[in-house]
Amino acid sequence: MRKLLLMSCVGTAALMAGGAAFANDDLVKMSQNPKDWVMPAGNYAATRFSELKQITPENVKSLAPAWTFSTGVLRGHEGAPLVIGDMMYFSTPFPNIVYALDLAHEEKIVWKYEPKQDPNVIPVMCCDTVNRGVSYGDGKIFLHQADSTLVALDAKTGAVVWSVKDADPAKGATGTSAPFVMKDKVIIGVSGGEFGVRGYVAAYNIKDGKLAWKGYSMGPDSDTLIDAEKTTSLGKPVGKNSSESTWEGDQWKIGGGATWGWYAFDPALNLMYYGSGNPSTWNPKQRPGDNKWSMTIWARDVDTGAAKWVYQMTPHDEWDYDGINEMILTDQSIGGKEHKALTHFDRNGFGYTLDRATGELLVAQKFDPAVNWATGIDMDKSSKDYGKPIRVAKMSTEGNGEDVNSKGICPAALGSKDEQPAAYSPLTKLFYVPTNHVCMDYEPFRVSYTAGQPYVGATLSMYPPAGESNMGNFIAWDGAEGKIKWSNKEQFSVWSGALATASGLVFYGTLEGYLKAVDAKTGKELYKFKTPSGIIGNVMTYEHGGKQYVAILSGVGGWAGIGLAAGLTKPQDGLGAVGGYAALSNYTALGGQLTVFALPN
Amino acid sequence: MRKLLLMSCVGTAALMAGGAAFANDDLVKMSQNPKDWVMPAGNYAATRFSELKQITPENVKSLAPAWTFSTGVLRGHEGAPLVIGDMMYFSTPFPNIVYALDLAHEEKIVWKYEPKQDPNVIPVMCCDTVNRGVSYGDGKIFLHQADSTLVALDAKTGAVVWSVKDADPAKGATGTSAPFVMKDKVIIGVSGGEFGVRGYVAAYNIKDGKLAWKGYSMGPDSDTLIDAEKTTSLGKPVGKNSSESTWEGDQWKIGGGATWGWYAFDPALNLMYYGSGNPSTWNPKQRPGDNKWSMTIWARDVDTGAAKWVYQMTPHDEWDYDGINEMILTDQSIGGKEHKALTHFDRNGFGYTLDRATGELLVAQKFDPAVNWATGIDMDKSSKDYGKPIRVAKMSTEGNGEDVNSKGICPAALGSKDEQPAAYSPLTKLFYVPTNHVCMDYEPFRVSYTAGQPYVGATLSMYPPAGESNMGNFIAWDGAEGKIKWSNKEQFSVWSGALATASGLVFYGTLEGYLKAVDAKTGKELYKFKTPSGIIGNVMTYEHGGKQYVAILSGVGGWAGIGLAAGLTKPQDGLGAVGGYAALSNYTALGGQLTVFALPN
Repeated sequence: MRKLLLMSCVGTAALMAGGAAFANDDLVKMSQNPKDWVMPAGNYAATRFSELKQITPENVKSLAPAWTFSTGVLRGHEGAPLVIGDMMYFSTPFPNIVYALDLAHEEKIVWKYEPKQDPNVIPVMCCDTVNRGVSYGDGKIFLHQADSTLVALDAKTGAVVWSVKDADPAKGATGTSAPFVMKDKVIIGVSGGEFGVRGYVAAYNIKDGKLAWKGYSMGPDSDTLIDAEKTTSLGKPVGKNSSESTWEGDQWKIGGGATWGWYAFDPALNLMYYGSGNPSTWNPKQRPGDNKWSMTIWARDVDTGAAKWVYQMTPHDEWDYDGINEMILTDQSIGGKEHKALTHFDRNGFGYTLDRATGELLVAQKFDPAVNWATGIDMDKSSKDYGKPIRVAKMSTEGNGEDVNSKGICPAALGSKDEQPAAYSPLTKLFYVPTNHVCMDYEPFRVSYTAGQPYVGATLSMYPPAGESNMGNFIAWDGAEGKIKWSNKEQFSVWSGALATASGLVFYGTLEGYLKAVDAKTGKELYKFKTPSGIIGNVMTYEHGGKQYVAILSGVGGWAGIGLAAGLTKPQDGLGAVGGYAALSNYTALGGQLTVFALPN
Repeated sequence: MRKLLLMSCVGTAALMAGGAAFANDDLVKMSQNPKDWVMPAGNYAATRFSELKQITPENVKSLAPAWTFSTGVLRGHEGAPLVIGDMMYFSTPFPNIVYALDLAHEEKIVWKYEPKQDPNVIPVMCCDTVNRGVSYGDGKIFLHQADSTLVALDAKTGAVVWSVKDADPAKGATGTSAPFVMKDKVIIGVSGGEFGVRGYVAAYNIKDGKLAWKGYSMGPDSDTLIDAEKTTSLGKPVGKNSSESTWEGDQWKIGGGATWGWYAFDPALNLMYYGSGNPSTWNPKQRPGDNKWSMTIWARDVDTGAAKWVYQMTPHDEWDYDGINEMILTDQSIGGKEHKALTHFDRNGFGYTLDRATGELLVAQKFDPAVNWATGIDMDKSSKDYGKPIRVAKMSTEGNGEDVNSKGICPAALGSKDEQPAAYSPLTKLFYVPTNHVCMDYEPFRVSYTAGQPYVGATLSMYPPAGESNMGNFIAWDGAEGKIKWSNKEQFSVWSGALATASGLVFYGTLEGYLKAVDAKTGKELYKFKTPSGIIGNVMTYEHGGKQYVAILSGVGGWAGIGLAAGLTKPQDGLGAVGGYAALSNYTALGGQLTVFALPN
């Protein structure tokens, strides 16, 4: 009887999905139901905003854990659960267990999927064995495994419906990101920029897992799905072989530009948005040229993958300012004109707002005052350097030379923000951005490429800006003005994703393990709770049985927590993170737990 | 400055201990301060009773987690934290990390001790890689490591003060139990009854770790520290070589009688109490005789180890009814006479109450109606079988023969209760007993002894009693009458230790992960909360900053949870536990977390 009830409940969602031409028709509708959380960012616009308002600035002080769940896996837990009706779904770091819990029956485990994966994939995961969550569509739950397999699971039973091996971990290509369901496609990226993997986005048919299209970050136009005339950059056609021409010889073949971030989708424009990562290697001297289209915001047609526009934020990267961070789609009035906007807080420390239909650059400002590698972005449309960063020569790791330790560069390689996604409230019109406040010494060195071996080419050490001790800030950002509205200091990087709610609350987690709630207008801390382990997961909310819940995955790790997660102790280990974040071990230990909060009855 | 504050705080406790002739003078005093929890059972009487009463039957419904902490270790978490002033101390399963947290400074980790241990110890731990906690005395924290090392850590810094290797894991001897500080001794037992280890209790000098005395469970009187005349059993001198004479040849040398349970101490009588475990092997046919003094309650002089009295509960065990469960010291009026009593809930399903000064048997009754291997205990003092179980022939695994599967024996090998310790409230005069409600099929087979190899000699399968589905009960027991007062059904064994408080509350945890609070008088469930993982730890309480807290370690495992903990799947694996407890995987997953509850502000 219980089974029947469950089946009928999930069955409703499945039927909805099955009955429509495209999964996304339902997903758009489903994402508008604030009781559920049907996709990683809550909605296609990636605002991580919820209309739920039972928990308010007034009563949030009474918030308390309602139930908790251990995932049985240690190391870094990025991502967040999905909630669809009575069911909750989430995934763990390697070995990428997926749990399906029944919210109507004391969170009983309805099914559990644990893939068998070769543990040799672990050493080729640069920055912990993370997985950023599952997606839902067409009655299926999609998991992007560490070994790059994309698997479709029956949402009711956990049975494998189809599965496809996307890439070769033996060559350094791994899966860490959430899949994204858009229309009749399941879209995934690839991790491996530190192994010379050439990044791409792959779209698989939701029904059978057949590859629909694949768009690379670099290479010939036929690989990048760039059209010399139709694809634009800052309003102009990019021209023929815009990528290949910015690389020396065949270097683009091992050129990086991984695609492991959060994707957004505008159904009206039929465009998907994402960023490509750093060029390989981290030693800039070894790869002359702009290294296009690494470090680029991409707008692609979801049906064909055709690139509509591109914008490269950091041409010829010298600092690993990977461009994969999320794209948030909002309506913004900028310079007296309404725009369908896209806002992106880049690792390089600049917050960019563009018109997402045209790729026009509207705003580009530092969102951390510590940023010192560039003084700004050239906004002069008549300049030959329009849209490019105005670099500070002293901070050029290439200029300073190979085997020279360039000191005091801000931000550090892990950026003023990394993958930890920001939220946006249409009510305050502010973005809520978890940030890193970290600088670095960076010493590039010559490295040769061997498939499957690290192709990093730099040693790093990381630390807070001179004279400061806090390594993070949680800020509110006015995207139209490009200004920080308020900023809360945190001892460590804020490596959790934010959530904004209609009641005027913003939630985030800290590396020490606190879930915090702050006032959306002022940033005033209204509530905190010490969860079992450091938080690098993303806060989400849902309603069940008439009650609003706030859920967060704990589990310290990720790049900032790699010292704890992988048991590293030398300051320069973990691509430099171990040194800066060593003090984390005074506050928390490994673990993987879900904590679900609610107001008392 | 913070460090100084801390040092002065812990320093107070250390000074107290250092200034006295014996550590226990302070510990007795300290254990009377209900704000602290200075020893594993809260006090030497092992009542697990607290005078704190801020949390009441009326307000307990408002209880909520106040803070949580992940231990970074998976598998079964038995034991409980200690609290001494501002400091909290606890240990994890293998690798036996010890954490010292500062309760006055947001539970920051003051120090962490992680021993380097050979992982080869793991396969010689019969029933998960558990550790039952640390002890305090003389300014030191004592840890009994899996590899049998007893280590004394500076309570302020975690520095190793002394360390001694107690036994040889290569021969199957391991450490799982908490050490016990009594006067100027640190006393430990040994695990390894399934490897033919001959059990003993060892007392080390608290100052330098030098062995003071060692008393074996079996062997010559010089080994057992038994005096033919002065040591009594049921009021009579045991006579010369009372142990050796009950074994065939040298079998006592590999005879089991491990000593891994909870110890109690009566400072007035200067006697310590504990139980010895099953005789080795589990195939009774292979070891004729009563197999003394396995399965025995022991009273020993703490200074010398001299045995004052012994009482064997299950002579010539045929079911693995290991006798190590806790001894609870209370005052009881029985048959119109006041007794300094000792109450013990044995694996064999009988609750025994003895006069702890004399070893006189006062009460012996079934505490689970399912018990069917014996009809009762012979209480006729004139009988030659006085004090012995009255056995049911059909349930004799020896009688049924080797390689014969004896079916439907209750309780199962893990007993009507295992190590999960009961609590006692002097206010209700009731014992609160977490029980197993489990039966078994048991098939003994011939096995030969090889040092360090399993010496089990039986296969088992476990399941609930016929016609029932609940595998556990939480009961209130009148020790004077030997009767169940109330009984709450639980789906699985209640494998957590209980806590009783002066406000009339009793707390326990469940294998699904719930912490529960019930009314001490009626058993009515007043509160439950789903912690991250299944609970096999023991509930404790303390007061800090004027607020009462209740703390519990989650982390499913132990014998009942061995299937989940060790990834076993065949029903007969895990000494038969996997089959009976397979459904646990529908409720919880591995994890190690401390959850600390309080009333809202």
